Amino acid sequence: MSTSPQRSTPTQDSVRRQNLGALLRYVHVSGDTSRAELTNQLGLNRSTIGALTADLAGAGLIDEGVPQETGRAGRPSLVVRPRSSWVYGYAMSIEVDRLRAARVGLGGKVLDSRELPRPHGTAVRDTVATLAGFVRDMQRTVSASGPGGAVFVGSGIAVSRMMRHADGTVRMLPAGARLGSDLDGWSELGLDREPLVGNVADLAALAEHTRGAAVGLDNVVYLHGDAGISAGIIAGGRRVTGHGGHGGEVGHMVVNPQGRDCGCGSRGCWETEIARHVPLDRAGVLAAVEAARRGDPPARAAVRQAADWLGFGVANLVNVFNPTAVVFGGALRELYLTGAAHVRSRLSTMSLPACREHVRLRTPLLGDDAPLVGAAELAFERLLADPLETAET
Amino acid sequence: MSTSPQRSTPTQDSVRRQNLGALLRYVHVSGDTSRAELTNQLGLNRSTIGALTADLAGAGLIDEGVPQETGRAGRPSLVVRPRSSWVYGYAMSIEVDRLRAARVGLGGKVLDSRELPRPHGTAVRDTVATLAGFVRDMQRTVSASGPGGAVFVGSGIAVSRMMRHADGTVRMLPAGARLGSDLDGWSELGLDREPLVGNVADLAALAEHTRGAAVGLDNVVYLHGDAGISAGIIAGGRRVTGHGGHGGEVGHMVVNPQGRDCGCGSRGCWETEIARHVPLDRAGVLAAVEAARRGDPPARAAVRQAADWLGFGVANLVNVFNPTAVVFGGALRELYLTGAAHVRSRLSTMSLPACREHVRLRTPLLGDDAPLVGAAELAFERLLADPLETAET
Repeated sequence: MSTSPQRSTPTQDSVRRQNLGALLRYVHVSGDTSRAELTNQLGLNRSTIGALTADLAGAGLIDEGVPQETGRAGRPSLVVRPRSSWVYGYAMSIEVDRLRAARVGLGGKVLDSRELPRPHGTAVRDTVATLAGFVRDMQRTVSASGPGGAVFVGSGIAVSRMMRHADGTVRMLPAGARLGSDLDGWSELGLDREPLVGNVADLAALAEHTRGAAVGLDNVVYLHGDAGISAGIIAGGRRVTGHGGHGGEVGHMVVNPQGRDCGCGSRGCWETEIARHVPLDRAGVLAAVEAARRGDPPARAAVRQAADWLGFGVANLVNVFNPTAVVFGGALRELYLTGAAHVRSRLSTMSLPACREHVRLRTPLLGDDAPLVGAAELAFERLLADPLETAET
Repeated sequence: MSTSPQRSTPTQDSVRRQNLGALLRYVHVSGDTSRAELTNQLGLNRSTIGALTADLAGAGLIDEGVPQETGRAGRPSLVVRPRSSWVYGYAMSIEVDRLRAARVGLGGKVLDSRELPRPHGTAVRDTVATLAGFVRDMQRTVSASGPGGAVFVGSGIAVSRMMRHADGTVRMLPAGARLGSDLDGWSELGLDREPLVGNVADLAALAEHTRGAAVGLDNVVYLHGDAGISAGIIAGGRRVTGHGGHGGEVGHMVVNPQGRDCGCGSRGCWETEIARHVPLDRAGVLAAVEAARRGDPPARAAVRQAADWLGFGVANLVNVFNPTAVVFGGALRELYLTGAAHVRSRLSTMSLPACREHVRLRTPLLGDDAPLVGAAELAFERLLADPLETAET
């Protein structure tokens, strides 16, 4: 509940836009949907749904058609389908060890994709140039596939937080950066809209909440392990990112005053205490987990201690957020799966029963694609907020 | 941004309700407001504002009148005023050491109030009986003041979290309790609506965000010290309370694995580490701060160490929430004011620059009234969500 008196109030026009957005969002998330279900789910009457679908079809955003044989008597309800191959955005992710880009259709369908490893320490200019090259290449495919007219609606980029300096700025890109003419390569693409930038953990949380392990759960802590730990938080169904989008730096929550010095300038940070035992990058976790599974005693001890510290921080976050799900993403997935007993043990001894009562511990359904899927959601955000305005410009 | 496809979509009727609620909320929070300002602030045209104010005036919720002499030429815009003495709710707070109740008018004006100390360990039945007595007594005043017709819209109760058992349940009242016929005394009051229950920290945060130190700030961590520490969190302008309303148990965030046993069953909890040096109830903090001010060396050391631990946890929360304000309420106010330098020092060494960049450290503007003011906001919540429906029933 917001108490801000300045919030905007609806007018007839804004209501229509909101309804168009809600309908388009529904089919974007749920896929092909009958008019009957839309009527039911959106709480609007049949004639309103009819008018809205007509508008969206007119703008080329959806198709309507007769459903496959249902076997039931009576006239079937028309099915509304997102025009996935026609309406698209670009999703990109700049991760610690690789660069990815995809052309994603409305409804979340990946139409095309590119990927390259990202050598350690690659400079901004080169990273952006690579992504621009991916996009240019995929643009050519769009042009080649027909007489044009496909609708580009925006682009989103997931940037690993781990590229931030100790002072909190992103090493590669300014925090909260708007990529634009500042960066070579982009302006030449002829994309009229600047990409929206989010961080990997936030966008992975958004993706898992929209299409993955946390669908229907409104209080979610998504933990992303990738050299360090950052969190994407969903509270009351909404992303919690803080004032400047810098929230979720849970890896730098100090859990041990006697702990090790951390690169951030503090000591005993959560991620540092885990990394004393198992390095928090993917390769480090996999190697440790493999060795432990083979029965190597030092490796088993290391994984046990790392998982114990993992549970330590999770218990703290459960006391703070009273979530219904904690999702272990990135490099944390394997550490959690191997050390789940230790994580659960910490949770049950350190978090209050009322706070942990309904919490489920999960791994991502979208796996490593979560950041890219989240970046695509960012790319569609403007369209879904105001479908006709965005589709027509 | 919510991505839930199930969210409800507006209809013409719901739009009118939303607009009525937004207008009434505006005058509830801001006080007397000209129609011109409402037109401007709510983004609606003059005729819509006129229709809405007519509806609200018809329901007895507002008055309209000519403003005081403005000294400007031309016809002045009518002023809309909340009918504070006519439309009211009951706000109550069950604190560790006292019980309070107030009759609060629309607009937040306290029309009447009662208070009694609450002896340590008072039983549920007695506490509720006392509050019911307060309300009954205030009801008599309403009846005596005229021929009736004043509009009761609801009641809210702030309950100290510190009355929860170690298992997370509230000792006095079930967590998330709905007071009703279960509890003696209430049903006899003839109040047709059950009180809404919130916890002290959440409601104090709501109050400071609506009318106090955090007005206009959308990312706020309000810390309430009262035997322990709990937080009321505002993120993106909305209350973050977690799945069951049990979030914000920041006092049980573990900050020291080598720390003291805590009553919750864990050890090294934030509140326990502070309380090693200065007991976290009001009397304990005041005594320690007074002794330190007189120059007593052990007291000075104790306050310094308690403030250092206070800053420790604040730095963690700043990394998690990237807030624009941290408000030190309850018993923490004096500890913060005396030990601000230590708190700031921890903040600057332990939190990431990007996370702490815009944070302001504040004390409550509403002081000890914050929980009661927040309970009143809870009492008005239903009215503001749907003014005519609520006023007419």
